[in-house]
Amino acid sequence: MMAGASAATMPGPATAPDDVADAAASVTDRDATRQARMQGVGARPGTLRPSANALPPRLFLFSYDQTGYEEAEYRSYDELLQRFRSQPERRHWIDVRGYGDVALMERIMLDFELHPLQMEDVIGDYQRAKVEVFGDNRLFLVSRMTEFTARLEIDDDQLSIFTGPNYVLSFQDDYEDCLDSVRQRIRSGFSQIKQRPPLYLAYALTDVVLDHYYPTMAAIGDYIEELENIIIRDRASKRLLARILQIKKDIVRFRRLVYPERDKILELLRLHDEVVPEEIKVFFRDCYDHAIQAMDLSESYRESVSSLIDLYMSDQSNRMNEVMKVLTMISAIFIPLSFVAGLYGMNFARERPGGGINHLNMPELYNPWGYPTVLLIMAAIAGGMLIYFFRKGWFRN
Amino acid sequence: MMAGASAATMPGPATAPDDVADAAASVTDRDATRQARMQGVGARPGTLRPSANALPPRLFLFSYDQTGYEEAEYRSYDELLQRFRSQPERRHWIDVRGYGDVALMERIMLDFELHPLQMEDVIGDYQRAKVEVFGDNRLFLVSRMTEFTARLEIDDDQLSIFTGPNYVLSFQDDYEDCLDSVRQRIRSGFSQIKQRPPLYLAYALTDVVLDHYYPTMAAIGDYIEELENIIIRDRASKRLLARILQIKKDIVRFRRLVYPERDKILELLRLHDEVVPEEIKVFFRDCYDHAIQAMDLSESYRESVSSLIDLYMSDQSNRMNEVMKVLTMISAIFIPLSFVAGLYGMNFARERPGGGINHLNMPELYNPWGYPTVLLIMAAIAGGMLIYFFRKGWFRN
Amino acid sequence: MMAGASAATMPGPATAPDDVADAAASVTDRDATRQARMQGVGARPGTLRPSANALPPRLFLFSYDQTGYEEAEYRSYDELLQRFRSQPERRHWIDVRGYGDVALMERIMLDFELHPLQMEDVIGDYQRAKVEVFGDNRLFLVSRMTEFTARLEIDDDQLSIFTGPNYVLSFQDDYEDCLDSVRQRIRSGFSQIKQRPPLYLAYALTDVVLDHYYPTMAAIGDYIEELENIIIRDRASKRLLARILQIKKDIVRFRRLVYPERDKILELLRLHDEVVPEEIKVFFRDCYDHAIQAMDLSESYRESVSSLIDLYMSDQSNRMNEVMKVLTMISAIFIPLSFVAGLYGMNFARERPGGGINHLNMPELYNPWGYPTVLLIMAAIAGGMLIYFFRKGWFRN
Amino acid sequence: MMAGASAATMPGPATAPDDVADAAASVTDRDATRQARMQGVGARPGTLRPSANALPPRLFLFSYDQTGYEEAEYRSYDELLQRFRSQPERRHWIDVRGYGDVALMERIMLDFELHPLQMEDVIGDYQRAKVEVFGDNRLFLVSRMTEFTARLEIDDDQLSIFTGPNYVLSFQDDYEDCLDSVRQRIRSGFSQIKQRPPLYLAYALTDVVLDHYYPTMAAIGDYIEELENIIIRDRASKRLLARILQIKKDIVRFRRLVYPERDKILELLRLHDEVVPEEIKVFFRDCYDHAIQAMDLSESYRESVSSLIDLYMSDQSNRMNEVMKVLTMISAIFIPLSFVAGLYGMNFARERPGGGINHLNMPELYNPWGYPTVLLIMAAIAGGMLIYFFRKGWFRN
Amino acid sequence: MMAGASAATMPGPATAPDDVADAAASVTDRDATRQARMQGVGARPGTLRPSANALPPRLFLFSYDQTGYEEAEYRSYDELLQRFRSQPERRHWIDVRGYGDVALMERIMLDFELHPLQMEDVIGDYQRAKVEVFGDNRLFLVSRMTEFTARLEIDDDQLSIFTGPNYVLSFQDDYEDCLDSVRQRIRSGFSQIKQRPPLYLAYALTDVVLDHYYPTMAAIGDYIEELENIIIRDRASKRLLARILQIKKDIVRFRRLVYPERDKILELLRLHDEVVPEEIKVFFRDCYDHAIQAMDLSESYRESVSSLIDLYMSDQSNRMNEVMKVLTMISAIFIPLSFVAGLYGMNFARERPGGGINHLNMPELYNPWGYPTVLLIMAAIAGGMLIYFFRKGWFRN
Ligand SMILES: [Mg+2]
Ligand SMILES: [Mg+2]
Ligand SMILES: [Mg+2]
Ligand SMILES: [Mg+2]
Ligand SMILES: [Mg+2]
Ligand SMILES: [Mg+2]
Ligand SMILES: [Mg+2]
Ligand SMILES: [Mg+2]
Ligand SMILES: [Mg+2]
Ligand SMILES: [Mg+2]
Ligand SMILES: [Mg+2]
Ligand SMILES: [Mg+2]
Ligand SMILES: [Mg+2]
Ligand SMILES: [Mg+2]
Ligand SMILES: [Mg+2]
Ligand SMILES: [Mg+2]
Ligand SMILES: [Mg+2]
Ligand SMILES: [Mg+2]
Ligand SMILES: [Mg+2]
Ligand SMILES: [Mg+2]
Ligand SMILES: [Mg+2]
Ligand SMILES: [Mg+2]
Ligand SMILES: [Mg+2]
Ligand SMILES: [Mg+2]
Ligand SMILES: [Mg+2]
Ligand SMILES: [Mg+2]
Ligand SMILES: [Mg+2]
Ligand SMILES: [Mg+2]
Ligand SMILES: [Mg+2]
Ligand SMILES: [Mg+2]
Ligand SMILES: [Mg+2]
Repeated sequence: MMAGASAATMPGPATAPDDVADAAASVTDRDATRQARMQGVGARPGTLRPSANALPPRLFLFSYDQTGYEEAEYRSYDELLQRFRSQPERRHWIDVRGYGDVALMERIMLDFELHPLQMEDVIGDYQRAKVEVFGDNRLFLVSRMTEFTARLEIDDDQLSIFTGPNYVLSFQDDYEDCLDSVRQRIRSGFSQIKQRPPLYLAYALTDVVLDHYYPTMAAIGDYIEELENIIIRDRASKRLLARILQIKKDIVRFRRLVYPERDKILELLRLHDEVVPEEIKVFFRDCYDHAIQAMDLSESYRESVSSLIDLYMSDQSNRMNEVMKVLTMISAIFIPLSFVAGLYGMNFARERPGGGINHLNMPELYNPWGYPTVLLIMAAIAGGMLIYFFRKGWFRN
Repeated sequence: MMAGASAATMPGPATAPDDVADAAASVTDRDATRQARMQGVGARPGTLRPSANALPPRLFLFSYDQTGYEEAEYRSYDELLQRFRSQPERRHWIDVRGYGDVALMERIMLDFELHPLQMEDVIGDYQRAKVEVFGDNRLFLVSRMTEFTARLEIDDDQLSIFTGPNYVLSFQDDYEDCLDSVRQRIRSGFSQIKQRPPLYLAYALTDVVLDHYYPTMAAIGDYIEELENIIIRDRASKRLLARILQIKKDIVRFRRLVYPERDKILELLRLHDEVVPEEIKVFFRDCYDHAIQAMDLSESYRESVSSLIDLYMSDQSNRMNEVMKVLTMISAIFIPLSFVAGLYGMNFARERPGGGINHLNMPELYNPWGYPTVLLIMAAIAGGMLIYFFRKGWFRN
Repeated sequence: MMAGASAATMPGPATAPDDVADAAASVTDRDATRQARMQGVGARPGTLRPSANALPPRLFLFSYDQTGYEEAEYRSYDELLQRFRSQPERRHWIDVRGYGDVALMERIMLDFELHPLQMEDVIGDYQRAKVEVFGDNRLFLVSRMTEFTARLEIDDDQLSIFTGPNYVLSFQDDYEDCLDSVRQRIRSGFSQIKQRPPLYLAYALTDVVLDHYYPTMAAIGDYIEELENIIIRDRASKRLLARILQIKKDIVRFRRLVYPERDKILELLRLHDEVVPEEIKVFFRDCYDHAIQAMDLSESYRESVSSLIDLYMSDQSNRMNEVMKVLTMISAIFIPLSFVAGLYGMNFARERPGGGINHLNMPELYNPWGYPTVLLIMAAIAGGMLIYFFRKGWFRN
Repeated sequence: MMAGASAATMPGPATAPDDVADAAASVTDRDATRQARMQGVGARPGTLRPSANALPPRLFLFSYDQTGYEEAEYRSYDELLQRFRSQPERRHWIDVRGYGDVALMERIMLDFELHPLQMEDVIGDYQRAKVEVFGDNRLFLVSRMTEFTARLEIDDDQLSIFTGPNYVLSFQDDYEDCLDSVRQRIRSGFSQIKQRPPLYLAYALTDVVLDHYYPTMAAIGDYIEELENIIIRDRASKRLLARILQIKKDIVRFRRLVYPERDKILELLRLHDEVVPEEIKVFFRDCYDHAIQAMDLSESYRESVSSLIDLYMSDQSNRMNEVMKVLTMISAIFIPLSFVAGLYGMNFARERPGGGINHLNMPELYNPWGYPTVLLIMAAIAGGMLIYFFRKGWFRN
Repeated sequence: MMAGASAATMPGPATAPDDVADAAASVTDRDATRQARMQGVGARPGTLRPSANALPPRLFLFSYDQTGYEEAEYRSYDELLQRFRSQPERRHWIDVRGYGDVALMERIMLDFELHPLQMEDVIGDYQRAKVEVFGDNRLFLVSRMTEFTARLEIDDDQLSIFTGPNYVLSFQDDYEDCLDSVRQRIRSGFSQIKQRPPLYLAYALTDVVLDHYYPTMAAIGDYIEELENIIIRDRASKRLLARILQIKKDIVRFRRLVYPERDKILELLRLHDEVVPEEIKVFFRDCYDHAIQAMDLSESYRESVSSLIDLYMSDQSNRMNEVMKVLTMISAIFIPLSFVAGLYGMNFARERPGGGINHLNMPELYNPWGYPTVLLIMAAIAGGMLIYFFRKGWFRN
């Protein structure tokens, strides 16, 4: 399918019922990664082996120069290639989504002179953020896009970017992504992206991925606060601890995503000015600040989760304390009373078997005020205990 | 508004009912930061987007040379600029408070040749301390001013400083700040600030921000001691743990503020002498000592809070112990007594149904000294138990 | 035994009933290591002292060039050496399994110009991953091959690799290994291994060892999840904690294996291009990514195990809580009831010994509705308690 | 006051009733530091502001050369200065104790060409160990002198040393210090100090400060052992934990003192040989070993305190366990007995209201052996329980 | 005493009843170190002050060349020196054991041109491992020899080695050491030591000290496993925790021994080839591997001990759980039964005082099946409870 200027009004993906496909891909992401990783054991380096549920590739081409742009999805790679090659004076963003066609991947690899190990990294989908310089001052950039899912897990997808003299070639395994704001900026009348070399587009993509770390972290932060409130207001349960430990896992995972991101940018900033010119480095330096901020945030959440666990453990102990207090108060009040009652339930006999009176055997029982007196004594004991516990503060929580 | 020598007697901000505004800004600081951060997701780099409750900018100009100074607040930026430009031989401190006017911010950016990414950092208000060299040996310095609020939280605001050949341009988002001592020093007859290049003023501002870390830390230290005393003297409650964990968060946050401050100064000290001359580096070296001291303090408080949590947990366990002791002592004393009472409450019959005496069935009941003897035995049991517990030290706390 | 082209169809080891031998070696691995380590105390450096249960060496030779290959096991070292030397234009993989023959080891050492300290490292079998450059740009590479055994322990074996101008010489102490996929790749029609220098084969062996870290880690990961489910669904036991701590030990051990692996590759990447040419470094860079991933995984599992211990401790506390609740509920219901029963079991006498009625002594006993009323009061107390506990949520888990 | 050779026999400070003053200064040390720190907030850099309870300065001069020495305390700075200047060929130690006279401090600063920031560091009294090179290869050395006080706290005082061509100028805020052994060495007939440049005296002072870390650490070590014995032999109390946490704070504080000490010496060792000649570096290298040892010791004590907390927590849990055992044993023995007694306290009637016998209603009560049998059963129950608990080991501690 | 070839058959120390002396020295090692450290406070650097129980020195000389060797103990230092000096073409190992003679130590110091600070390090006996280059490319090497004593503590002694052009001079404070295997190797016919420069002997001594770390660590490892088994099979006691914490201290101490050892070797490997020739560096590189392995082991044991503490704490909690279960089960069974018994022990009267029957007052008591029915009810309650607890798994451990 060929798309002209009219296509430029088309904001989303053109044709695909891919929402379902995307969800499916997302659910099995982790198993897929593991599966891919296990299949690769012992394989020849550079083997292209997409996971079983890899989506069929969709191909998008954005072509632009300072005066305008053109945007379309292509059904065939040949069409796209032809269109791309017919406009050598323009800049292009070739945007491949889905790895489910090995033959196509190999063609792209050869046409754009990628190393098989790089293509393996793309399709493997579990590469941490990195930068590699290859060929004629070209860059291979890997970023990881994050999302905090409804299932309270961080879903991360790989964005692989290759720069070329007049193009950026990007790969990802889902049809939907967090890059729409960049597309929108190209579509808008004036954009830095149209004014600058393709490396700037690579920067813009990296920057937007980093920007999306904040909503992810904010969602985690909100969730931590929610858990904190549950513990303070309600009661802690084993299920709650499991959720706390799950969010801890998420944060640990996020840290493992964001630290390499910082290292990547640092390495990029140290590259020779011929590879990354100073005018672009200024922008990556800004990215570096963002990466550091994201790391700071993740460290901060880490501390919060550890505090949460302390709070949980303390609450658990607190509740035990309360249980024990109930037991102790009831026992302390009624056990002495029961003793008194038991005392006057004894059967010591007033009358001697052989006649005569045992005056010392429980004379209280025959006193006209015996029972009321005992009741009063019992009330005094109970009252004394209550006062004792009140003074100890056992009635306060 | 134009201000001459007479204005020099004016110590605070001239005209604004800004106390209320400032409080409002302060309360929503955190949400504002999050909001600003979220709005920025996917935005073009260098986008100026102040938070919704940013205050309208107030503009102050301090002009001085070795012989005198002039100080005024300006209603219009044009007036300020004109006054600034009309005295090229003097040194100036342009002091902008509040970011609520994007157009003005953009004008300042262009007039003072700032990079849009720098202005974005200024307005974003969540940039950690850093130093950047730009233009013709100019510096962009970011510091974070701290305050320990009545709500027991660290409030931090950003101070952004740009140096120029004969001026310092500073930005902050509140009308009130911790920089008054510097203003007072300029106003005083003789001051180093008047004798030295603008970079010295930048140093003085950085130094005073660092100085203000100490009252913040002292407040935290006092609060930790207060909590410690509460645990040792009173009783620990779940609410108390929540407060301990809150102060832990504050300390963690303070550390994240002060570490970049140290790194910033270190980086600054490593800059070429053309950018920061040796005579100024001497002063920043003193700042470095202060930053290290602040870090030391924060590490020390971190340990204190961790000890506090240990103490809290132990106290919790201690109180459980006490509850159990009460239960155990009461049970240990009365349960045996109740048994004895129960024993003599049994109904074994002395007389056989068919006549005759069961001499073995509870003869104690018919003994004239039966009851007193049992009472004595009970007293002995209770006394024995009390002695046992006393010896075990259960009556001591 | 001489092997020609026909041998090329022989995929596994040719002749040995070595499964049993291998299992035996495996079981005593750890003791053997300790024993070897202890025997070596005070010994002359470079002493070759295989452990007591070292297997008799088996000798394999793979010879290949771009047009074909030949593969055989040799009964005698002389035959192997002769065959190896008769084909100087081909490339060879001399694959020695088992160290049980010191004389043979010394011959190989001399023939292939290895340093006695290197041979000691080979036979010692407890050397962490490392790389050494020796002789004429030759490399000595040590890797550790891992396996997660049925006894839930990591079994690790040493793979020692020496490169030479036209050969790779490898040593290991078991007959079976994880290198079959490399052998298969040589056997297959077209292989990079046949096209490239021997160093590439050394890389391929290193890579396949690293690849096998993933199944090991995956097994550990599965096991952690299984333990997590046991704690959440079932009940924690002391035995379970022992298993958790065992898996923690495994992870700690794995980390100690994989960190040197990364350092080794990093050191290798920093070697001069004459020692490791750039075309091979590209491949080791890929290995580096794998090593980092393995480290990330092990760190992540470490955190998971630490969470598991938290969960276990909390569960233990939870179960105590439940026990206490049962005790408290039963006590709180029946102790007051028992008191009431005891109260009306007292024997205060209605009739005065000297005649006359003590109207105040337990008139309830003579009330026609006395007993039913008391039963109702008891029911009310029990019901009240139950409602209280229900409201406190003690019936929920 | 002028002092000649006769003064050389005077070992301590000449005239002052300073023991009291020193104690007072010591008690308020911490508050003074905080106060000084707070007063300095916002002050002009280089402001000299001694704390409110700073002692009036006492001035000592040691003058020596290879043939003899002279030692005296001076009432007036002018006299001291005159004496110092009149012997340019000798070496001098100007020893200032107490900062309570700002005017004097400023005079010294000007006369000896110190930077105001340095004098601020001296008087501030909270500077961590550091070395600065200034002027003509002069050194500014700050050390912290420690003492473990009777109140179980580390008291640390600052020793500030400035070197000059033929003198060492030192400052401290107390009249008493740990430097007497150095003074004694100068007084003794032959001393390296008299043979070598002033820098050697600076070394000797630094070395003796470092040496005094050992008694401090030894006192802490003894105290830790004492606490350990208390926990193991006696019983842990909340007060004990407070003491453990106090000693933990001390150790943390000591670490913060000694780490900068090591860094200072390391920095000094890296200075150019013109500043610190190799013959002196040999001695500072020895100091470096001492600093490392002190760090090692402090790390070791840190571990010990952490073990102490574990031990305390476990002891607390142990004591709870014991309390529970007492409760359980008493309950387990008497509750069943009470039940049996209660059983035979029931009033089931043998005689039917309407006449006739209920042969099934508690015939035991009428059995002539009823009571003895029940007593035996009770003894059997109690004995069984005791055996059960003995077997479970509950009687052992 | 002069010793010729006949002395060469003498394997142990010649004359001393030093076993007792050695044991004594060993027992008081720690106090001696502390004492030495404390005496040195404030002393002139380079002061030689052996501890009070230092043994009288014993002097051994090993002289060898490629053709033979000679070995003897000398009663007098002069004899030894004369023999040493009379064979300038041979290589010598001067082996001094015991520091108890300051005058002798000073003579050796002067004769062999050692620095007083070095001799102080030797005699101080608390120097961590280090290497120093001095004089004419001479080395001063300090190692720490370890032993795991029967009292379950690590005993460490210092081995100080000085190299010279044709000799190695070593010092240690005990008569017995772990260096006999090196002596044996010199005695044996062919030895590398005889072929190579004295530095190789220094290496051999360092290597054998490192080798002896393994038995020490193995003993610790065995002990950890033993403790683990005690906790899992038997019961944890406070004494056991004290032992765990003791072994933790040992491991911490071992780490502090072995880390400097690695640093020492690393520093040595970085020395110029003129100081340590490449042919010797090969051997020290092997030592480096050993040091790293020892560090790995110590880290691994550290983790094991931390797991052990977790296990202990959990076991303690487990036992509390069991105690509570016993209490709860007995209470839950008998408290309801006691209530029922108490119920039927109430004295509600069937007959009204004024005549007539209270039919509602405890008619059960008069029912002919009353007692058996109540017994059945009681049995049902007890059985129900037992089933409930069985189902909850409380009878399983
Ligand atoms: Mg996705
Ligand atoms: Mg995904
Ligand atoms: Mg592979
Ligand atoms: Mg691979
Ligand atoms: Mg994916
Ligand atoms: Mg920025
Ligand atoms: Mg504010
Ligand atoms: Mg604010
Ligand atoms: Mg952005
Ligand atoms: Mg940005
Ligand atoms: Mg703000
Ligand atoms: Mg200072
Ligand atoms: Mg194996
Ligand atoms: Mg094995
Ligand atoms: Mg050895
Ligand atoms: Mg060795
Ligand atoms: Mg093995
Ligand atoms: Mg890869
Ligand atoms: Mg003092
Ligand atoms: Mg003091
Ligand atoms: Mg200041
Ligand atoms: Mg200052
Ligand atoms: Mg002081
Ligand atoms: Mg010894
Ligand atoms: Mg010893
Ligand atoms: Mg000394
Ligand atoms: Mg010394
Ligand atoms: Mg020394
Ligand atoms: Mg050293
Ligand atoms: Mg010793
Ligand atoms: Mg080796």
